[in-house]
Amino acid sequence: MSESTSSELLLARLRHPARDAPDSGIVEVMNYGRRRDGVMGLWAGEGDLSTPAFITEAAARALAAGETFYTWQRGIPELRHALAGYHTRLYGREFSAEEFFVTGSGMQAIQIALAMTAGEGDEVVIPTPTWPNAAAAAGIAGARPVSVPMHFGNSGWTLDLDRLAAAINARTRALVVVSPSNPTGWTASRDDLAALLAIARRHECWIIADETYARFWYQDGPRAPSFYDVMAADDRVLFVNTFSKNWAMTGWRMGWIAAHPTLGQTVENLIQYSTSGVAQFMQRAGVVAIEQGDDFIARQIARARASRDVVCEVLAKSGRCRFAVPSGAFYLLFAVEGETDTRRLAFRLIDEAAVGLAPGSAFGPGGEAFLRLCFARDPEQIAMAAERIVGVIKRR
Amino acid sequence: MSESTSSELLLARLRHPARDAPDSGIVEVMNYGRRRDGVMGLWAGEGDLSTPAFITEAAARALAAGETFYTWQRGIPELRHALAGYHTRLYGREFSAEEFFVTGSGMQAIQIALAMTAGEGDEVVIPTPTWPNAAAAAGIAGARPVSVPMHFGNSGWTLDLDRLAAAINARTRALVVVSPSNPTGWTASRDDLAALLAIARRHECWIIADETYARFWYQDGPRAPSFYDVMAADDRVLFVNTFSKNWAMTGWRMGWIAAHPTLGQTVENLIQYSTSGVAQFMQRAGVVAIEQGDDFIARQIARARASRDVVCEVLAKSGRCRFAVPSGAFYLLFAVEGETDTRRLAFRLIDEAAVGLAPGSAFGPGGEAFLRLCFARDPEQIAMAAERIVGVIKRR
Repeated sequence: MSESTSSELLLARLRHPARDAPDSGIVEVMNYGRRRDGVMGLWAGEGDLSTPAFITEAAARALAAGETFYTWQRGIPELRHALAGYHTRLYGREFSAEEFFVTGSGMQAIQIALAMTAGEGDEVVIPTPTWPNAAAAAGIAGARPVSVPMHFGNSGWTLDLDRLAAAINARTRALVVVSPSNPTGWTASRDDLAALLAIARRHECWIIADETYARFWYQDGPRAPSFYDVMAADDRVLFVNTFSKNWAMTGWRMGWIAAHPTLGQTVENLIQYSTSGVAQFMQRAGVVAIEQGDDFIARQIARARASRDVVCEVLAKSGRCRFAVPSGAFYLLFAVEGETDTRRLAFRLIDEAAVGLAPGSAFGPGGEAFLRLCFARDPEQIAMAAERIVGVIKRR
Repeated sequence: MSESTSSELLLARLRHPARDAPDSGIVEVMNYGRRRDGVMGLWAGEGDLSTPAFITEAAARALAAGETFYTWQRGIPELRHALAGYHTRLYGREFSAEEFFVTGSGMQAIQIALAMTAGEGDEVVIPTPTWPNAAAAAGIAGARPVSVPMHFGNSGWTLDLDRLAAAINARTRALVVVSPSNPTGWTASRDDLAALLAIARRHECWIIADETYARFWYQDGPRAPSFYDVMAADDRVLFVNTFSKNWAMTGWRMGWIAAHPTLGQTVENLIQYSTSGVAQFMQRAGVVAIEQGDDFIARQIARARASRDVVCEVLAKSGRCRFAVPSGAFYLLFAVEGETDTRRLAFRLIDEAAVGLAPGSAFGPGGEAFLRLCFARDPEQIAMAAERIVGVIKRR
């Protein structure tokens, strides 16, 4: 047997949902551009600021103090307590440390929330375009992700609740709601959230609520509307979140699940049997991030708001782009007139504009015609990137 | 509806394989003893040494240098290259960086290896007593773990290969082989490994090879026998491993998978959709661990060997313990005459001997009559712990 035949056989013997997991359309572009000099990478969901020193130094201190042993599977008590305090400040009611569980990334929070709700033969309903990882993780678990394309029109992105309800059947176990949305910037209103909750109650589904971008909110108030505003304590809602965005900690891989304390032992077990917890020295940094990070978050939001304004202005002026001004998160999802193969366009923009964007095809049905630009960066740089993009797309 | 009824309903609505995941019988004891003063915790698979400074300082340097962004899903090239070099030194043939994938713990390596091989309706065969996490992770994935109890007799622990082969059927997708074994210390000989491989080939199963303790080996040579000694490149073997033990990095949650490069994209995708990689600043520490850690490993092994000898001597002298002297790993699994409820005995030893052990019931069929003691520690401390244990068990 030839070498290539025998290694093909290895692939054939893999469990199919694992073998058939889609490659990340974002990572593909990142890997293409990452080793080229001078490319401004706006492909990923991260900004240009490294983690602030007051946070990294807390981790370094814990490392030097020898905090390198196994620790609590649910997270160290200090961090769970800090998370409760953070939520109490932000959502205007009391939270208990028993509601919070530290995970090895927001992505792992999603994987665990999916494992809690859906498996082989089940379905998970997900409005698209959206960050593709929840759907892919559902597929690996043997569940079927069901896309509900949102509508893009003159009033921006809208979610048709009837269409969403029609996608639910007896096999549906969960709805994944990302609000503010990555990549569209759409944000559910309080009424939307109440309606989504009513649908979930009626169909006895779980809601997996990804409110990662709650703070990156460009309308009234300190945060976007939340399921916390409309739900009862015993509603079937699992919150997944991350330290990545608020505190510029993308590379750390630290997040959390917020859930009813009754579910605590199940969450603990799912942590135990997947990664067995998060490094204590990282969690110490998480405590400092939450307790001392408000100024840093405010600065990031102000930058993102200014960058949002400038990128929208430059692309609008080009006369060749269509987009809705995002009300939340830090992405602009835009279509370019006459460009249908946005994956190819993303590669071309790396080569010709030295700007890295994520192709909309990576975000599922409804995203194909778009590119996603992350504007969590210095407004001057974002202006420059936008000009360079316009320079390339005008050439056609 | 009362509060307790409505929260019970939340549990009832969970996906059953998640809800029914077993609590860790080790963590239960750790949580009981962790906050008591003066308890010598020999319950977990970790020693008393914190991570050496040359390793923690590499992480602190990377943190200070701003290495806090997303990175390669398969691991940074420098660490994959270092892993290849490490294996080349240890196994006496050339390895390529393309065979190595960095994971967020050895546990995650196991979870990913299971996702690659077995899901709903499949079976995974696992000799027991063993570290329970692989079986639990298989169960969460919807697969059925099938225990094959090993035999404990006058010649120590033995694995009956006919009994193992008889446990395999058309649904079996993988055999999990932990050698040297946690908790028994049993180590497969080269002949055992060849026989296991032949069984796997015959039944077209994958082998998930956990050789975490390869270096903690008290017989001839620098490491225990390995599937690398008997396999061909295209055999269906997935290696799972961890930085935890060799380099005293238990709390870091960093491990690796070694697999045929053909499987690389699948492994990358499974990392992407579970934790999306490992912190770059941790991986920098991993590089330093591998490249400068040989003296530290040698010192740990010498300590473990001396501790093994002293604990075996003290417990043997008591006349009330039965055990096989472990040929590998750093655990002593021992039975106490007249004690059948080893979970209760573990709690009693915390209260009366101030020594924390793991009850054998945590390790599956065949382990119930035993306690596991981790001797990766200073021999004088291990001697003291052994004396304290003997003091309690003699009282009965």
